[in-house]
Amino acid sequence: MTAPLRLGMVGGGEGAFIGDAHRKAAALDGRWRLVAGCFSSDPANSARTGVMLGIDPDRCYVDHHAMAAAEAARADGIDAVAICIPNWLHAPVSKAFLDAGIHVICDKPLTNTVADAEALIATASETGRLLIPTYTYSGYTMAREARRMIAEGAIGAVRAVHVIYLQDWLASPIERDGQKQAAWRVDPTLGGQGGVLADIGTHAYHLATFMTGLRAIALCADVVTEIAGRPVPDNANVWLRFEGGARGALAVSQTAIGHANDLSVRIHGEKGSLHWRQEEPELLVHDDISGGRRILRRGGTAVETPARLPPGHPEGYYEAFGGLYADAAEAIRSGAAATPTLPTAADGLAGMHFIEKSIVSASRSGAWLDL
Amino acid sequence: MTAPLRLGMVGGGEGAFIGDAHRKAAALDGRWRLVAGCFSSDPANSARTGVMLGIDPDRCYVDHHAMAAAEAARADGIDAVAICIPNWLHAPVSKAFLDAGIHVICDKPLTNTVADAEALIATASETGRLLIPTYTYSGYTMAREARRMIAEGAIGAVRAVHVIYLQDWLASPIERDGQKQAAWRVDPTLGGQGGVLADIGTHAYHLATFMTGLRAIALCADVVTEIAGRPVPDNANVWLRFEGGARGALAVSQTAIGHANDLSVRIHGEKGSLHWRQEEPELLVHDDISGGRRILRRGGTAVETPARLPPGHPEGYYEAFGGLYADAAEAIRSGAAATPTLPTAADGLAGMHFIEKSIVSASRSGAWLDL
Amino acid sequence: MTAPLRLGMVGGGEGAFIGDAHRKAAALDGRWRLVAGCFSSDPANSARTGVMLGIDPDRCYVDHHAMAAAEAARADGIDAVAICIPNWLHAPVSKAFLDAGIHVICDKPLTNTVADAEALIATASETGRLLIPTYTYSGYTMAREARRMIAEGAIGAVRAVHVIYLQDWLASPIERDGQKQAAWRVDPTLGGQGGVLADIGTHAYHLATFMTGLRAIALCADVVTEIAGRPVPDNANVWLRFEGGARGALAVSQTAIGHANDLSVRIHGEKGSLHWRQEEPELLVHDDISGGRRILRRGGTAVETPARLPPGHPEGYYEAFGGLYADAAEAIRSGAAATPTLPTAADGLAGMHFIEKSIVSASRSGAWLDL
Amino acid sequence: MTAPLRLGMVGGGEGAFIGDAHRKAAALDGRWRLVAGCFSSDPANSARTGVMLGIDPDRCYVDHHAMAAAEAARADGIDAVAICIPNWLHAPVSKAFLDAGIHVICDKPLTNTVADAEALIATASETGRLLIPTYTYSGYTMAREARRMIAEGAIGAVRAVHVIYLQDWLASPIERDGQKQAAWRVDPTLGGQGGVLADIGTHAYHLATFMTGLRAIALCADVVTEIAGRPVPDNANVWLRFEGGARGALAVSQTAIGHANDLSVRIHGEKGSLHWRQEEPELLVHDDISGGRRILRRGGTAVETPARLPPGHPEGYYEAFGGLYADAAEAIRSGAAATPTLPTAADGLAGMHFIEKSIVSASRSGAWLDL
Repeated sequence: MTAPLRLGMVGGGEGAFIGDAHRKAAALDGRWRLVAGCFSSDPANSARTGVMLGIDPDRCYVDHHAMAAAEAARADGIDAVAICIPNWLHAPVSKAFLDAGIHVICDKPLTNTVADAEALIATASETGRLLIPTYTYSGYTMAREARRMIAEGAIGAVRAVHVIYLQDWLASPIERDGQKQAAWRVDPTLGGQGGVLADIGTHAYHLATFMTGLRAIALCADVVTEIAGRPVPDNANVWLRFEGGARGALAVSQTAIGHANDLSVRIHGEKGSLHWRQEEPELLVHDDISGGRRILRRGGTAVETPARLPPGHPEGYYEAFGGLYADAAEAIRSGAAATPTLPTAADGLAGMHFIEKSIVSASRSGAWLDL
Repeated sequence: MTAPLRLGMVGGGEGAFIGDAHRKAAALDGRWRLVAGCFSSDPANSARTGVMLGIDPDRCYVDHHAMAAAEAARADGIDAVAICIPNWLHAPVSKAFLDAGIHVICDKPLTNTVADAEALIATASETGRLLIPTYTYSGYTMAREARRMIAEGAIGAVRAVHVIYLQDWLASPIERDGQKQAAWRVDPTLGGQGGVLADIGTHAYHLATFMTGLRAIALCADVVTEIAGRPVPDNANVWLRFEGGARGALAVSQTAIGHANDLSVRIHGEKGSLHWRQEEPELLVHDDISGGRRILRRGGTAVETPARLPPGHPEGYYEAFGGLYADAAEAIRSGAAATPTLPTAADGLAGMHFIEKSIVSASRSGAWLDL
Repeated sequence: MTAPLRLGMVGGGEGAFIGDAHRKAAALDGRWRLVAGCFSSDPANSARTGVMLGIDPDRCYVDHHAMAAAEAARADGIDAVAICIPNWLHAPVSKAFLDAGIHVICDKPLTNTVADAEALIATASETGRLLIPTYTYSGYTMAREARRMIAEGAIGAVRAVHVIYLQDWLASPIERDGQKQAAWRVDPTLGGQGGVLADIGTHAYHLATFMTGLRAIALCADVVTEIAGRPVPDNANVWLRFEGGARGALAVSQTAIGHANDLSVRIHGEKGSLHWRQEEPELLVHDDISGGRRILRRGGTAVETPARLPPGHPEGYYEAFGGLYADAAEAIRSGAAATPTLPTAADGLAGMHFIEKSIVSASRSGAWLDL
Repeated sequence: MTAPLRLGMVGGGEGAFIGDAHRKAAALDGRWRLVAGCFSSDPANSARTGVMLGIDPDRCYVDHHAMAAAEAARADGIDAVAICIPNWLHAPVSKAFLDAGIHVICDKPLTNTVADAEALIATASETGRLLIPTYTYSGYTMAREARRMIAEGAIGAVRAVHVIYLQDWLASPIERDGQKQAAWRVDPTLGGQGGVLADIGTHAYHLATFMTGLRAIALCADVVTEIAGRPVPDNANVWLRFEGGARGALAVSQTAIGHANDLSVRIHGEKGSLHWRQEEPELLVHDDISGGRRILRRGGTAVETPARLPPGHPEGYYEAFGGLYADAAEAIRSGAAATPTLPTAADGLAGMHFIEKSIVSASRSGAWLDL
């Protein structure tokens, strides 16, 4: 019965995809109210967006430094800011808000380099503010249920993990036809060197560690550019070794025609296995060594992770994203303590190591590298 | 770039299911802002709910008559009210707001009797206000896409429709154990005589007519009470004849174990067929007489009905519900004109006829009755 | 370690579908050897077929009466004959072999009329020979497993059954283009009055009674001809009442585009439900009231009905058909005693009643008729 | 209209799995008749099996050398022999029959070492006899249809292949409990060093090259033994490079609980992609860059590879196996010329290279090795 927290946003102007998703996610459970924003580098766009969203014009900014300063100075200033802008701006903009004492909820990958990520984490640590990378898919109820089940021993010690994440929107060189989302992602100075590794590989990697509860300790990679002339990879295979000995095989591609957002995680343990797919997120397949296959369904009586809706009333992407915002609200209210499921700054850094080491491994003909 | 409309709510206090869904649906697209409510007949509950939702205490009412009068008198009064209370209250509460000149968005079934529905529609007509029954499932993108495809001739003239809607939450007599949702639904004085016909049959019936674009002209029913002693039916089979000659077979049950909210519509035409399932709402199966099965996916290039998210990022129940609120906003803004997809008061009345005629038909050993 | 039984065949000449299926089914488990046949009314076709099959020319007949007489007279004469010819010939040809003391394995429907079926059963009874209608789908391992589970109480008392059987090969009037399979089926003098009820309805009806173990005691039907000018129905809905009170809703169509041979049975009981689909025959979905959905797989440890292959190595139509031939061999070896799963002559007669009563019910606007 | 070919068998005594499958596969299409056998090293078992199968006692042998000699000497001697015995016996027994001028249909892997395979192929070449390894899964209609489609350019140049083959029957050390199938497979002297690579990896590898029509030119492997103390690997990941530049990621495991025989091949090309699963073999998913997903079904009008049964009447494992025997009959009849789809001795040798190079690569920390 407490009042909502106050949220600011950088990015998310007219026509933006991920900023709109952040807003819907934050609004979903009533724990946040969007009260300030610097929605676009184009002042007119930013202003129009503010009007549409009912933001007080005084809190509709054109410069993120001004926004950080002004909000930090207000008694009713924002509790946290959502950073919804291309990768290369994550580090400097996040730093400005952390320095102003404002919690940061930042899109992934956390930064464009490991070095930037380390510096940003240092800032977060010094300021005591949260730095939360939005590994959205870990917000799905059944991905969380899988994590809980594994932690409680439902499948025994993990032996092997198969993570496949396939998309097809970069199956043609659409970046050359002015598609903006594609253009910055395949430009190494804007989206980083990682290409597919940064854009979706980090999601896949985080989810594998999130669901298993295991840290990866080494990797070996094969990284490929399918589309001739594209300066970043669009297809990669990465093998992982986890603490305790489990092996992982991760495959990501953005040129796999017919696969919209096909993220699939199979985890095999000594006593059973689990399989979860993002495109059918309500279900979790549990195979037990005794021979039975159970289909667990979000909201069902056998599932302990709480949900908003009863089973059969599908929840989806916004609801998963909302799970992160709900966790963030809880973490901030409890004094910036982490919740068990909220992605941490360390998770963001791990993602940067995953990207950079994969590229190095592939350049050395698939050498195994410690993480 | 216009400001959101103002929404009031009757019902939706702490612990309520459907009121919360109405709120999330209304919030989703930013077209509505909840500003007033009479959330519970318990004043303390209503007040607590208002605080949690950030409602001005002055606009947190304990009596819906007072609310209708006060809001009608305000310059910034609500544009519409959401009615989220048990069936037997739909008619009187809706009437109060219509009489006050406020548009009504009302849960289904519209009322408890055909007579009540007819009276309420007369009121709406006299006042020129919208009376919108929330046939939620018609808000799904791919249900709407099916309607569009059929209207444009994708499967030719419709020959046959199979609608199956199965739930299992009433598979045991939980109404005797104090389950509130169950208790009023199986009490004829509160939920009406229809039981399963009212609770989910009206959804199935509406969807069949919505997707095909055809009016049903006759029915024949077999209505059953599986749970001994339950005063309303929990299982029913209804055959339909549509204008133009198509036949329908509708089966609904709330005692079908393992089926959470399993609403499935198959429409067979002279040139092809379509199949849509609510529990997998992103997909629409299109079979063409030439022999190919296509799987259409929300957001995909072959799909014309617009969506919020790209394919592979699942939308679900709240998003479907949000589709109705988006339509309602558009209808109100355009002067209470209907949109092609928004359920009408006439649709609400048709649902009441479906319930009552099914019961009569079954009582006459399956006589065919005109609708 | 006994020698195979000797099989004869009437029908199954070059280009025939079902005769070839009978042969493969009989060969599968090594319990039968085809040694005689009257494969076609065209002597040249019959002779060519015999050569191809390695049949002794002396046992390749052009007349079924001659065949029955000659085989009955041989010391090494056939143990049984497979009748694989159009419906209108089932009765006279079966009678000829029964009269000669030879067991009969006959395609369904058993005959073209109830009267013919009753006469044929009388002959079987007098001669003490088996008369086995090939309700093929009851030969699937998991359909049998469902029967076993229900008999042992796995889902409690059955409340409701939904059987849907959809095909699309008659979605156009192909009988007018010389398609032979279609031509005789839609000619009432050759295929009977039943049309879709005879061709696939009898399968659906038998499977509902086979899997539930319940006898149907009444029906109510709506029978439709979708294709203008077709003299038999191609679409039908039939409601059933079973002994004990369970209800059934059966829907069959041969004009449902995109459905090749889509036979689906859902059985809902007081404690759980089962769902089986012929097009995915290896799986049986079991929902329990406790909330879990189990997917049972042929060959798996939780399944008691024996199978030829381990799970994951798909069995299909021929293997199901082979199940009937295996049962038939066992029944003959044990002195013409029925096995629990082998279809009986009484099952064949029940199918004829189903056809005829459905047509009468529909002609009386859906009157309920006792079975 | 020609007579069946004559088949002999080594192995396949009482209780054997794969020998029985060979027999059913050979019997299916009537192109083969089993007339001789050396079914077991136990003379009594061999004799009993012969009786059960109706084999002339004179042609029921206890020694495969005797069998090869005797059959070669008969005017009506066998045309080919099926070798259905553990891996370590493949080479010597096959050689005996090739030397006797008899075609060999041999289970995979072809031998236990590359050297043995090379020697055996030399023998086949010298004698002019066929040496056919039974890569059964390439006999499925829709796997063949995928090959045909790719060859005809349906998905453009292949970019990437994902092959996953998971089983669970070795998820526990059942070889220590006397399970015979497991015992010889995990004994390097009987089943070879390859373990999972030999038992199922060769199937996966062959299918990837068969369906794409591409030769693999290099590999990199990670090979693991999950079950402590098991002397051969039971889990492996292998990356492939194909001629033309396509990449492959192959994952095989026999400890993946819940996966019975889960072989899945995804092939991504410049214009589309294909997905086929052995456990659902009737379907082939075709995604086209234009945006549509088509589900192709065996027997359907859009499918050119011929089938025995119309769509919706499932074919399975025996039918796939029968596809190889049909091809073998055709190849023998046409003078030992290869058919486009029949696995060749060279395919068998390629499988041996796959096994040995994978083990070497893994031992060198994932070095890329030329094939």
